[in-house]
Amino acid sequence: MKARVHVTLKNGVLDPQGKAIGHALESLGFAGIGEVRQGKFIELDLTENDPERAREQVRQMCERLLANTVIENYRIDLG
Amino acid sequence: MKARVHVTLKNGVLDPQGKAIGHALESLGFAGIGEVRQGKFIELDLTENDPERAREQVRQMCERLLANTVIENYRIDLG
Repeated sequence: MKARVHVTLKNGVLDPQGKAIGHALESLGFAGIGEVRQGKFIELDLTENDPERAREQVRQMCERLLANTVIENYRIDLG
Repeated sequence: MKARVHVTLKNGVLDPQGKAIGHALESLGFAGIGEVRQGKFIELDLTENDPERAREQVRQMCERLLANTVIENYRIDLG
C-alpha cells in the first residue's frame, strides 16, 4: 500500500523558503503572486495492506520523525 | 486562486533524502517499509482567477524555477 504524506508549516510560522521562492518568482517577472509556502511531500511504500493499520503506522511515523508537530501539520493519504 | 505544486524526482533518479528517511524509520523500529521518496510541495496564492491562465502561469513558474525538469516531474493542482 502506498502512503503520501504532506508536511506543511502551521499558519503563522514564518516560512523563509517560501518567501525566497516568492521573491525569486517576482524577480523573474511573474506578477500577482501572494503568499508562497513550501512544504514536504513524502511517498512511502508499505507492506501493510490494511488501511486502518497503515494509517496508524504512518501517523506514528509523522509524530516521531516526519513532522515537527510544534510548527508543522501533516496530512496522510493512502492508496 | 490557490495553486498547489508537487515536485517529485523522476523514476530512476537516486533520492538520498528518501533513503535517509527510510533508514531512520527502520532504526526507529518501523517494519515493512519499502521505497521512500521525498518531494517538494509548494502552495501559491495567485491574483489570477482564470483557471486556464493560472495554470499556464504556474506551468511557466515550474519550468523556469520550481522544478529541475531534467530530473524532476511537477504536478499542478488549482483551486
